[in-house]
Amino acid sequence: MRAVIPYKKTKAKSRLSSVLTLKEREEFVESMLKDVVNTLSDNQIKNIDVLTTTSNSIPDNLDVNVITSEYGLNEAINSYLKNIQEPILIIMADLPLVKSNHITDIINTKKDVVIVPGKGGGTNIIYLKKPEKFTVKYYGSSFLTHCNIAKKNLNTVEIYDSFMASTDIDEPNDLVEILLHGQGLSREYIEKKFKIDDSKGRLKLKC
Amino acid sequence: MRAVIPYKKTKAKSRLSSVLTLKEREEFVESMLKDVVNTLSDNQIKNIDVLTTTSNSIPDNLDVNVITSEYGLNEAINSYLKNIQEPILIIMADLPLVKSNHITDIINTKKDVVIVPGKGGGTNIIYLKKPEKFTVKYYGSSFLTHCNIAKKNLNTVEIYDSFMASTDIDEPNDLVEILLHGQGLSREYIEKKFKIDDSKGRLKLKC
Repeated sequence: MRAVIPYKKTKAKSRLSSVLTLKEREEFVESMLKDVVNTLSDNQIKNIDVLTTTSNSIPDNLDVNVITSEYGLNEAINSYLKNIQEPILIIMADLPLVKSNHITDIINTKKDVVIVPGKGGGTNIIYLKKPEKFTVKYYGSSFLTHCNIAKKNLNTVEIYDSFMASTDIDEPNDLVEILLHGQGLSREYIEKKFKIDDSKGRLKLKC
Repeated sequence: MRAVIPYKKTKAKSRLSSVLTLKEREEFVESMLKDVVNTLSDNQIKNIDVLTTTSNSIPDNLDVNVITSEYGLNEAINSYLKNIQEPILIIMADLPLVKSNHITDIINTKKDVVIVPGKGGGTNIIYLKKPEKFTVKYYGSSFLTHCNIAKKNLNTVEIYDSFMASTDIDEPNDLVEILLHGQGLSREYIEKKFKIDDSKGRLKLKC
């Protein structure tokens, strides 16, 4: 099996711009990428492809294959999938709370397809035992869309239920979850800059 | 074993006031309570206590014991726990995405205590095999606080990892998760009032 991580560093994570500068956001997304790669490596997944555009640099010391495509996210992944004839894990780069046990659970599924929803209707991880026929369609209500695509292909589907795997990092409040539940480089990065504000309701960031 | 559901209806869920009127919020929290009670009943949990104040009416047709206390949340639960000599599930009333399988998993734990974190550092569910010695302290970073209380009592702790069980309903964006993943009366209620806005980023509510 292999894993593919779509990755954007340049001008990434604009919804975090109220709390992190452009440079900080780019450093932070790189930390998250490294955490995701480390988690996959811990699971003995040796073939890890990072799918990106030429404008996004990938750290030299990362043991991954870099595949560049100038297409948008969906076209790039769908074009990539056409050449894959083995089980594939499509995992987003902004999932620093995913741990080794989640990957183990997902790749040992008895179903044809595993889908991990993101917060607010997105899709964080898709595992395809047979990638042929499957096409992705991210953005908007992609979780429901991907469930429907799987069903149309007559695939059996497992919806994997994990708070950690469903927590994608897009907005300032998501960083609180890293401070609470995270580990690795992303947590180190965020801990240097923020504390927790527990004055009212859900916890918030304090600079 | 028994379950206890702390419940507030009157003027509840003020953080939903931008999308639901006071009357609607009170109707909606009642729907969520019924969903939680139904999920517990599906699991053959027969002794369900609803812990509330006299100002909060409980629907007559709900098969629960109503226990009133005029204390605040923490004091009311801690006072309640002093009289409990059997395993107890403390579950919040705003968890309509909790399903039967979650309850089964939690009450079959091998650990002394199970804690289900809420979004933003809260605590959604605590399961105590031996309630003696345990005291709760909700609000603020209660998830970390409850983990520490358990450790101080030398209890073994399971952190239960479920997106559905960790999704407490406090803010308008949480209602989107009910539209995506919910069922039961809460979903019916929200579906009558809202649709999904998928114009940008995470899905939002559309009236």
